[in-house]
Amino acid sequence: MSRSGLFAMYNNNTDAFSTAASIYYGLFSMQHRGMDATGICINQNGQFKYKKEDGMVIDVFDENLLSRMEGHAGIGHVLHSNRSDVREYAQPIVIRYTSGQMAVALNGGLVNTEELRKELELQGAVFQTSDDAEIISVLISRARNRFETIEEAIADIMPKLRGAYALLVMTPRKIIGVRDSLGMKPLILGKKRNSLYFSSETCIYNELDVEVIREVMPGEIVTINQDGIKSFQQIHEEKRALCAYEYIYHSRPDSVLNGIEVFEAREDMGRILAEEAPADADVIVWVPNSGLAAASGYAKALNLPLEDAFLKNKFYCNKFVQPTEDMVRRGVTMKLAVIKSRVCGKRVVVVDDSMVRGTTGRLLVDLLRDAGAKEVHMRIAAPEVKNECYFGGNDLDRTSLISSHKTTKEIQDMIGADSLAFLSVKGLKEACKGTENTLCMACFTGEYPVK
Amino acid sequence: MSRSGLFAMYNNNTDAFSTAASIYYGLFSMQHRGMDATGICINQNGQFKYKKEDGMVIDVFDENLLSRMEGHAGIGHVLHSNRSDVREYAQPIVIRYTSGQMAVALNGGLVNTEELRKELELQGAVFQTSDDAEIISVLISRARNRFETIEEAIADIMPKLRGAYALLVMTPRKIIGVRDSLGMKPLILGKKRNSLYFSSETCIYNELDVEVIREVMPGEIVTINQDGIKSFQQIHEEKRALCAYEYIYHSRPDSVLNGIEVFEAREDMGRILAEEAPADADVIVWVPNSGLAAASGYAKALNLPLEDAFLKNKFYCNKFVQPTEDMVRRGVTMKLAVIKSRVCGKRVVVVDDSMVRGTTGRLLVDLLRDAGAKEVHMRIAAPEVKNECYFGGNDLDRTSLISSHKTTKEIQDMIGADSLAFLSVKGLKEACKGTENTLCMACFTGEYPVK
Amino acid sequence: MSRSGLFAMYNNNTDAFSTAASIYYGLFSMQHRGMDATGICINQNGQFKYKKEDGMVIDVFDENLLSRMEGHAGIGHVLHSNRSDVREYAQPIVIRYTSGQMAVALNGGLVNTEELRKELELQGAVFQTSDDAEIISVLISRARNRFETIEEAIADIMPKLRGAYALLVMTPRKIIGVRDSLGMKPLILGKKRNSLYFSSETCIYNELDVEVIREVMPGEIVTINQDGIKSFQQIHEEKRALCAYEYIYHSRPDSVLNGIEVFEAREDMGRILAEEAPADADVIVWVPNSGLAAASGYAKALNLPLEDAFLKNKFYCNKFVQPTEDMVRRGVTMKLAVIKSRVCGKRVVVVDDSMVRGTTGRLLVDLLRDAGAKEVHMRIAAPEVKNECYFGGNDLDRTSLISSHKTTKEIQDMIGADSLAFLSVKGLKEACKGTENTLCMACFTGEYPVK
Amino acid sequence: MSRSGLFAMYNNNTDAFSTAASIYYGLFSMQHRGMDATGICINQNGQFKYKKEDGMVIDVFDENLLSRMEGHAGIGHVLHSNRSDVREYAQPIVIRYTSGQMAVALNGGLVNTEELRKELELQGAVFQTSDDAEIISVLISRARNRFETIEEAIADIMPKLRGAYALLVMTPRKIIGVRDSLGMKPLILGKKRNSLYFSSETCIYNELDVEVIREVMPGEIVTINQDGIKSFQQIHEEKRALCAYEYIYHSRPDSVLNGIEVFEAREDMGRILAEEAPADADVIVWVPNSGLAAASGYAKALNLPLEDAFLKNKFYCNKFVQPTEDMVRRGVTMKLAVIKSRVCGKRVVVVDDSMVRGTTGRLLVDLLRDAGAKEVHMRIAAPEVKNECYFGGNDLDRTSLISSHKTTKEIQDMIGADSLAFLSVKGLKEACKGTENTLCMACFTGEYPVK
Repeated sequence: MSRSGLFAMYNNNTDAFSTAASIYYGLFSMQHRGMDATGICINQNGQFKYKKEDGMVIDVFDENLLSRMEGHAGIGHVLHSNRSDVREYAQPIVIRYTSGQMAVALNGGLVNTEELRKELELQGAVFQTSDDAEIISVLISRARNRFETIEEAIADIMPKLRGAYALLVMTPRKIIGVRDSLGMKPLILGKKRNSLYFSSETCIYNELDVEVIREVMPGEIVTINQDGIKSFQQIHEEKRALCAYEYIYHSRPDSVLNGIEVFEAREDMGRILAEEAPADADVIVWVPNSGLAAASGYAKALNLPLEDAFLKNKFYCNKFVQPTEDMVRRGVTMKLAVIKSRVCGKRVVVVDDSMVRGTTGRLLVDLLRDAGAKEVHMRIAAPEVKNECYFGGNDLDRTSLISSHKTTKEIQDMIGADSLAFLSVKGLKEACKGTENTLCMACFTGEYPVK
Repeated sequence: MSRSGLFAMYNNNTDAFSTAASIYYGLFSMQHRGMDATGICINQNGQFKYKKEDGMVIDVFDENLLSRMEGHAGIGHVLHSNRSDVREYAQPIVIRYTSGQMAVALNGGLVNTEELRKELELQGAVFQTSDDAEIISVLISRARNRFETIEEAIADIMPKLRGAYALLVMTPRKIIGVRDSLGMKPLILGKKRNSLYFSSETCIYNELDVEVIREVMPGEIVTINQDGIKSFQQIHEEKRALCAYEYIYHSRPDSVLNGIEVFEAREDMGRILAEEAPADADVIVWVPNSGLAAASGYAKALNLPLEDAFLKNKFYCNKFVQPTEDMVRRGVTMKLAVIKSRVCGKRVVVVDDSMVRGTTGRLLVDLLRDAGAKEVHMRIAAPEVKNECYFGGNDLDRTSLISSHKTTKEIQDMIGADSLAFLSVKGLKEACKGTENTLCMACFTGEYPVK
Repeated sequence: MSRSGLFAMYNNNTDAFSTAASIYYGLFSMQHRGMDATGICINQNGQFKYKKEDGMVIDVFDENLLSRMEGHAGIGHVLHSNRSDVREYAQPIVIRYTSGQMAVALNGGLVNTEELRKELELQGAVFQTSDDAEIISVLISRARNRFETIEEAIADIMPKLRGAYALLVMTPRKIIGVRDSLGMKPLILGKKRNSLYFSSETCIYNELDVEVIREVMPGEIVTINQDGIKSFQQIHEEKRALCAYEYIYHSRPDSVLNGIEVFEAREDMGRILAEEAPADADVIVWVPNSGLAAASGYAKALNLPLEDAFLKNKFYCNKFVQPTEDMVRRGVTMKLAVIKSRVCGKRVVVVDDSMVRGTTGRLLVDLLRDAGAKEVHMRIAAPEVKNECYFGGNDLDRTSLISSHKTTKEIQDMIGADSLAFLSVKGLKEACKGTENTLCMACFTGEYPVK
Repeated sequence: MSRSGLFAMYNNNTDAFSTAASIYYGLFSMQHRGMDATGICINQNGQFKYKKEDGMVIDVFDENLLSRMEGHAGIGHVLHSNRSDVREYAQPIVIRYTSGQMAVALNGGLVNTEELRKELELQGAVFQTSDDAEIISVLISRARNRFETIEEAIADIMPKLRGAYALLVMTPRKIIGVRDSLGMKPLILGKKRNSLYFSSETCIYNELDVEVIREVMPGEIVTINQDGIKSFQQIHEEKRALCAYEYIYHSRPDSVLNGIEVFEAREDMGRILAEEAPADADVIVWVPNSGLAAASGYAKALNLPLEDAFLKNKFYCNKFVQPTEDMVRRGVTMKLAVIKSRVCGKRVVVVDDSMVRGTTGRLLVDLLRDAGAKEVHMRIAAPEVKNECYFGGNDLDRTSLISSHKTTKEIQDMIGADSLAFLSVKGLKEACKGTENTLCMACFTGEYPVK
């Protein structure tokens, strides 16, 4: 399992921006997708040069390193991981095999990892990581010699991969982008003059002035190289299952996913939530920063003022010396503060993007009451998260998900809110302009698109 | 000259929070006042232990160091500096003299530095820094033996100090807080059970649950120690000159200054600006993060929707590999992005807190037009900055201040906006509930309160 | 190819020293065998935990890390490398395969690497490094399922490995030590109460008070685990080929190799060299530190005083800012100095352990002449190095070896010595108490023991 | 008190070596004199630029920094300190006073520090460190305005300085070297074409090809600048008191002090010790590295073989994870090893340069016995250290000095040696070619040259 950001560039020489720097910026703009490890592999005249490490983009790469990694093509990866030995999972996986070198980067996860590993081991494969990307690289390399092209090899092994994935495969002559047949993970094709790109999100395309061509289609295999773009497989299944959490939280608000701007989808979630669960209140406030879009939609729908009540300390990071337990118990957070004038004496609705463990909820309600709020109503712009995600959507097992074992009323009491409401699944579908046949909402509904 | 944050605690043993940790949190919450150097000096049973370094609070102090710096009293300092050899300026200045040890921390700056230094040198003084705080420490130490108390010594030298200052002086038995006679720099007295505090801002008092007692008065000398609070001097001049820029930019929005919450003052600036310079527009957007309060006031006054159009990359920091000049020229910023749906096809008003060099303005207008804005009107919630500040308010010489040599119309053309307007000085006074006899607005008006 | 140090411990619970710490000390005492990368893999109740990185032992491991790596068995590796991407070569290689986990560490190198890699790739193997140890791990894993025990699998693949190697293989239940059939690379079995060890040198056994049991025999496969020691294969070939350079330079002087203390062997080299090439001189000096033993033998044989003339700066390291080319040309070295009184006005013999590129020779002669030496005679306590080593003995290609293209007289002129002599091959054999059928002296003679 | 190394260069433009780099190499070659802090102050066209920090030369300075510190003159300092807040003591002290800037670096210490500080404080001085160099800088600055030249000011204050010192004072136009009137601390004048130097030792002059001119005389004030060398004061007292420990331990063996090469002095100590306390033995061994010269003298005198028995691990440093107490108790040192063949079955004399605490002695005897030595005789090439040094010679208080409270026989029993002998004071004088009127031997005799 990996929640990741992918970026690739095939630099067809008409673009003045360096390949390594472009990938660096691509990964940097998707840092929110994974802060645990970063890797870039560059094709230098047929030789692969790579660096992958635990840490954020700015920690792993610097100017010197980027300048030594120049080449005409490359792929990059940022990783979110909940494992302790992060480095083992850093990607791309770079291998040597009969047909030369191959680099593989994966966003997503397989549910039949163990089964595939066993099967390959019985055929003599050895593994140096427990990473799905390594398994996929071995599968491709083994299929490769049975086919004339690597695209055919990939097409051959895709039916074996049970799970959600977007995949980048770089060989000395091309870069290939692949999505699973349900299109659970995003991958978007871009173009700037003759140079070609793959990215998990469109946000970086805006920044680099790259034109969005289209999404890689579910089940499609797309190759980019000096000759342009080639598509190798079109699967015409009706069923799709794009992860709804991409709209709710994972993607950057300025990204466009399946034709819908993420910010707009979030504002719609707030708007619909206002219709489903209005509140008799004086002001709407948001939880920085991910709750803003939904709060904006909620406020507009009810024609109530949207106020900036929470101050998030931007210097807060993992080097910060945490308050002692005693200090925390006595209310010291140092991370969030409230601007009193916004809420004092008022009936407040606080809107957040989603609720997973429920720990933040209690803190928010306390901070607002301490600041003098007369009433505190909490509104969550997503349905109750009741089920684990096996595809990288959330990291938690079922028991950590508060909604898996508490009713909305019980949670409301636990966090001390005057009222609490979640967006309905129906509302979510409406906001994402999707259906249960186009969206994966398994974490809310328990209906998994893959066995 | 130094723009700084000051924090002091005299821990009268009934408070479970450690002195060093409290000062650490105090400085951390005022990190926005200065990111260049940090220092803490602790009184350990009469022995002073200190650490001061270039870097932010989280860079200079860690858990180990804090635990070794425990004591019953201490003062801390964060520094903003535009000099290259920052470390020389790190404070507090800690000296040994006839009466033992003394630690001095200063927010502000003197205009007669050179004169005082010369005079002291002629009396045999040597200096190891070019810091005003060092000069003040020498002045106090020399006056000290002519008086029975250090407070009298401070009172004696205050007429010599021409400038804006808030001062903390720690001796083995007390901590003294001082403000210049015009009250140009803030200093607020706090209390939590028997422990006593000084801080440049109230924001941290909320976080630590410290009760605000009152501001140190202009020209006042206030001592805190185990016996409580003593005030040593009351100057009853009518003239005051609190830095108006504290309301506009320097202070955190949740701080309360002279009885006025900074956020409210900023929202009022926006409101008044809307009255003075309305715009025929569809949406109001703000420049993150300091423009939000004013934009909110502007939008409310005109009853127009306030929208979140700009995305600031929160991973951006000084380790980031900057785009090349060529990339910048071709529009790559990586720091700010625009959410298209907010502005595309619309007439947009963008509100910022102030305009100093004018370089950001051009970028904002370009980004909004690239995102499809039909019209871009810029509104600045402060008057034109035309004059240098000698007291730490801005770092720039006159020639760098765009409004010192360009008219509003010229700036509007330069940045490419459809219209541009600044808040009037009158409007600023109204928002800050002050007059030219209570506020320093020299950077706008050229009327300096000190020669 | 890798020149390395190997250390393994199977901790049978009666020893109070921790496994991870013991391996740390084992590697630390063999740091001279490789300073480029370090790795340790520990068996924690059947789970392998490892860390490998570029850098020296003290750089890669610290107290925290060691304490988190506790377990009952483990293997470690220090690497000497002349490649740039050192990290790829860090060992042990840790893989997962049908029979679980396996960790492999190698000292030495194969000459049929490419051939084996090709063969394996055709069978579907992929490689993530270009390391011989990875190839060996794949070979073993593939052979494993054709045999009941891993020892049989190792025995099966050994005939395929053309080269010089000592090998450690750790599985969840045992550690296996292996030497090539010519015994080119050392590996010694040790014991301390019930705990069992493998090491490339005996020096660490002295330090940890471990008893030397015996060397692993050429071609032997030795297993250690909780049941003690088992030997799985005895090859009774007459031909041996222990690397003579282990005596000349690689091993620490207090190590015992094939029953001969390295220091004694080196002193004998000096003694024999004195017989072969005496010098009419006043003093013998050595090149620190590796020339001391031979110089001592040389001096004793001629009954001449041995003097400490060279001072090596012990603070010299890779952080040192190197003198500019101009400074170097004008004689600034900062690394070596001469104590004038030892050599001024005297006829000096300078003894070094071996001569590879010849660059140091010139420097030594110059330094001695500058210090006032009347005559400078250079004596090299090893034969002329004329041939490349394919087994990790030296890193250089033939053209870099000064003796491959210059006669002794030419070298003498080049370095400016009054005379120059090398130890004969016959002398070397005598000092090492070996023959051309027990020693590999290919770098001197060109007679390679392996095709 | 400070034991330090001083180096200065006045670069008169004909030398191609950069000033900053030359000082860097000067300090690096005297790193043994102090490893706790390093500082360099450079005169850049009249502006002083400096950097001082805790850490060794290679830690504090790198290529970038050196290149930014270019100038035509400069002074540097390495510090040995036994205090915890090392940075406070880093030198040079750089001050601004009536006559501009002044940088001061000190080797040595005053015994009337507190008295001088008190006196200056009463005159209004404040101190930011507790460093003698700061006090001296204040004294000079205050005397400066009573005289026409700074040399006169220095001459004026010298009678006030009770203690041992060598001093460097840099002003914008010159560098001044000063020694106390007893010449307790060394300072040597050098020249390379037109450039002029001061150094605490001559060793670096050899490395940089600088010609030794002469030592600064006791009580002398020597100025170097663009006009060459000027001497300002000659004190013709008979009494001298050069620290004898410079010969025994502090100086590098290739340095020449008062006309005597340190190595030769040490060898003579060994030679005389052999006459005073011969041993009936088979071999002489030395303690690396400082015992080698004396052991050589000892061995020659008795015509016994000198053998290299101890191996010091050159990778040992402060990052090394120390063995646990249990491991140490059971004999694990990891720092020193013994080459068995050198001592096994033999009667061994081990020679060390001096004995301070006596802790190493026990370890050496144990190691030799474990290696099979039949007898172990310890010989110390210095007298018993019985008294504290107030001038930086040793850091220890009297109770830590083993010879202050134990007889030689008691120490012999404690360390388990078969015999133990120290060099006599008379022997020391002979080796150093001095008398009680030219050498300070207070740590041995208790006769302090300064009250």
